[in-house]
Amino acid sequence: MASRVASAALKARVKRPSMLKKLCQPEDLLHHFPNGSYIGWSGFTGVGYPKRMPTYLADHVEKNNLQGKLRYSLFVGASSGADTENRWAALDMIERRSPHQVGKEIAKGINAGRIKFFDKHLSQFPTDLVYGFFTKDKPSHKLDVVVIEATEIKEDGSIVPGASVGASPELLQMADKIIIEVNTALPNFDGLHDITMTDLPPRRRPYLITNVEDRIGTNSIPIDTEKVVGVIECTQKDQTTENTPADDTSKAIANHLIEFLEHEVSQGRLPANLLPLQSGIGNIANAVIGGLGDSNFRNLTVWTEVIQDTFLDLFDSGRLDFATATSIRFSPTGFERFYKNWDNYKDKLLLRSQAVSNSPEIIRRLGVIGMNTPVEVDIYAHANSTNVMGSRMLNGLGGSADFLRNSKYSIMHTPSTRPSKTDPHGVSCIVPMCTHIDQTEHDLDVIVTENGLADVRGLSPRERAQVIIDKCAHPVYRPILQAYFDKAEYECLRKGMGHEPHLLFNTFDMHKALQEEGSMQKVKPW
Amino acid sequence: MASRVASAALKARVKRPSMLKKLCQPEDLLHHFPNGSYIGWSGFTGVGYPKRMPTYLADHVEKNNLQGKLRYSLFVGASSGADTENRWAALDMIERRSPHQVGKEIAKGINAGRIKFFDKHLSQFPTDLVYGFFTKDKPSHKLDVVVIEATEIKEDGSIVPGASVGASPELLQMADKIIIEVNTALPNFDGLHDITMTDLPPRRRPYLITNVEDRIGTNSIPIDTEKVVGVIECTQKDQTTENTPADDTSKAIANHLIEFLEHEVSQGRLPANLLPLQSGIGNIANAVIGGLGDSNFRNLTVWTEVIQDTFLDLFDSGRLDFATATSIRFSPTGFERFYKNWDNYKDKLLLRSQAVSNSPEIIRRLGVIGMNTPVEVDIYAHANSTNVMGSRMLNGLGGSADFLRNSKYSIMHTPSTRPSKTDPHGVSCIVPMCTHIDQTEHDLDVIVTENGLADVRGLSPRERAQVIIDKCAHPVYRPILQAYFDKAEYECLRKGMGHEPHLLFNTFDMHKALQEEGSMQKVKPW
Repeated sequence: MASRVASAALKARVKRPSMLKKLCQPEDLLHHFPNGSYIGWSGFTGVGYPKRMPTYLADHVEKNNLQGKLRYSLFVGASSGADTENRWAALDMIERRSPHQVGKEIAKGINAGRIKFFDKHLSQFPTDLVYGFFTKDKPSHKLDVVVIEATEIKEDGSIVPGASVGASPELLQMADKIIIEVNTALPNFDGLHDITMTDLPPRRRPYLITNVEDRIGTNSIPIDTEKVVGVIECTQKDQTTENTPADDTSKAIANHLIEFLEHEVSQGRLPANLLPLQSGIGNIANAVIGGLGDSNFRNLTVWTEVIQDTFLDLFDSGRLDFATATSIRFSPTGFERFYKNWDNYKDKLLLRSQAVSNSPEIIRRLGVIGMNTPVEVDIYAHANSTNVMGSRMLNGLGGSADFLRNSKYSIMHTPSTRPSKTDPHGVSCIVPMCTHIDQTEHDLDVIVTENGLADVRGLSPRERAQVIIDKCAHPVYRPILQAYFDKAEYECLRKGMGHEPHLLFNTFDMHKALQEEGSMQKVKPW
Repeated sequence: MASRVASAALKARVKRPSMLKKLCQPEDLLHHFPNGSYIGWSGFTGVGYPKRMPTYLADHVEKNNLQGKLRYSLFVGASSGADTENRWAALDMIERRSPHQVGKEIAKGINAGRIKFFDKHLSQFPTDLVYGFFTKDKPSHKLDVVVIEATEIKEDGSIVPGASVGASPELLQMADKIIIEVNTALPNFDGLHDITMTDLPPRRRPYLITNVEDRIGTNSIPIDTEKVVGVIECTQKDQTTENTPADDTSKAIANHLIEFLEHEVSQGRLPANLLPLQSGIGNIANAVIGGLGDSNFRNLTVWTEVIQDTFLDLFDSGRLDFATATSIRFSPTGFERFYKNWDNYKDKLLLRSQAVSNSPEIIRRLGVIGMNTPVEVDIYAHANSTNVMGSRMLNGLGGSADFLRNSKYSIMHTPSTRPSKTDPHGVSCIVPMCTHIDQTEHDLDVIVTENGLADVRGLSPRERAQVIIDKCAHPVYRPILQAYFDKAEYECLRKGMGHEPHLLFNTFDMHKALQEEGSMQKVKPW
């Protein structure tokens, strides 16, 4: 391996001398990536991912016309940076991918059948990895090479991650070889992480966390230093994009939700400072967190997957006491603000592995308020989080089911309609039956759209249907859904099968109208 | 309240004198049950339920022609005895029921729309109850009256349950009034239970269980003794039925499963004594436990919902070290055997609340091997556990999703076909798309029928479909399912939506053929 000269910046970040001896350039490591390798990367929601090695490999394939000839099984906690995995997808370098992804090219590869994708609960992916479930067909039962971003290598060789922890602890546990990209363009994140590894049963221990700020681990990820085949300096920051601002629809949704939370407090079912909040990604999530900033709630806490820009506002407003997640995914301006005010924020933030941030054990114990956006919800409160028209994969399940199954309050928020190509309300997000089901009727407590909020706790399916149609459906779809429900009820009750009435052989007629005539509004009478 | 004379048997079981003063007969308590009351009963899988008070109320309705005039919201951990809740259903005494039930009359009432039934994860039902979610529309936020079976009342007033714990701790926490049926026909179960209550967040604590035999609670359920409005002596045993014996199909399934577990041990993914087993109810479950009795496995442990007769055989064969559950549901001969050899079994058995037996936290930590039987499974590994033809409720979700989401190994076992009225293979249990989804594709690791075992860990949906069709489908349905999959793949891939290919508007055609022509075999070409 070619020896290279370490910069002063790098020396300041690498405390273990033997690691500096492994300093190299990506081209020195090419031979570790034969076709068919099983590869792990650090990263989660587009931050904390390795940048130089993946980019070098993409350049190599592109320059040498190796498209389709160097294909890998790629495991990352969740999505990596679009500049890396999306480019890999475009260059046909991905044979298999799990458990979550973001990017046009990778979605295209998955839906064209070139990329074998499986989406697993983000809490379970690292555990199943350590169980050997994903490497069971390899003789070594290991990942061939894991590339990880670090902001420091400590004297004992352990790694301080950057803006995400994700599945890095477990990827490193399962690695045959390790490549470390030390990122000197980022601040040293030392102290911002609480790291735990995954033991195998029968020796798994409880996660002794009872408050969002509890620490149960170490500051850095221990590794087997003999497995490190190369250390690379990286001087590129995470490539993120600006956030979508809240619109009127998402603000209306946020208002309904905040009113609901105020009601629950008034009824004694929630403490005055609520319980830890989980919030997804997107403009509705941003509107909800924004709305909390304008509310009367104080001393809020956050237990979530991803911390976004709006949380900085919530900190600055004095309403948020502490936030913990597995990744900090700020916009470029958000990161700037965060790095500039590091000392303000650093004691109010903690990053954990996704096995912990998404742990059912902890989510239930803390009584989290979980909020997510689906593709569609049906009248009986099942939800589709992944596959449009039952077949076309978007990004994957993510942690939605970890939170929605286990939260004290499981909330789905969605606009009541989305535009189709020809109709601004061509797609109803409330449908008779979801075309794919990721969240079951046994999981959801509340459905909310800009029209209103359906509280379905303790309701039978037929009661749920009526309240969801009344409160959530868009006015143009309300009579259509009501007619479906009425006819299904009539048909099923008279046959003695009316617990959850469906017109099974016409249940997807609204989707058919969308596909064939461009709008669900054009559905034929039931 | 009429004072009555206590029998010697009762005096021996009631250690708190003030409780003996509350001794009465069911008729003395009728006024506590006005129409519309919210009622809780102890009980789980038809054992440990109150017998006299419910029977008296049914008699009262029957004698006075009050059908439909005394209707209650009834909450029981899972199913109660058929002699009680099924009779209530027949007499139209149930307005609302949660979270699980067994019995022809109650299923009839649910599917005819007379009974509002909602099925919640058995682990969550008690928690949501304590959160006040099911009593939110009552001014008191409480259950009006909870009737509980005890085999002893201790000096501090606390209650020793009988053959099940279920949701009794939480029902008692939420009770406005309490009626205790002390069962003197059963042995005193003191020492067989490990009781924990449910705290509210932010004050919920970890369940510090790391082995199946760990005790973290008390022997009896603490109650507010001032809430007790009556104590009744009961001299009837639990009414259970004999078990269905294993047939050739279930034995073939058991053999595939045991071969799979042996393979996992040989690959180092399971210890030699496996990990704690969870097994459902029914002849396949019995065959699996029976098969383990004939296997080479030793020092087995069980972490499950219900302990059945076959576990007694497994104890007696010396292969089973310890079993814990929330109920012991033996057959009449099984109970006789258990009571006769009490001293042999008592230190190897422990009953916990269903919030603990079904806790995701503990199921994940212990790495349970979870096994359940569905209504149907689809080619992408979703499963229907509850609603036939998407609409007709059987018994409810039960704990299936608690275990299948959280187990280390999540296994669905089913015969590949069931008979319809006119065709011994009229119903394929492997279908293109489940008509109702309770377990998602993100939850299942293994599908097994008498034909073979599909190991779907780490597979993309299209890979899963092929292995499930090849290994699990019945030979008469294999070409039908393959033709569906081939056409769906062709249609979806060319449209760039081929992640999980479906012919969405024909996906229930096999169900249509069953409904209209009596057999899924008669489905028209796709």
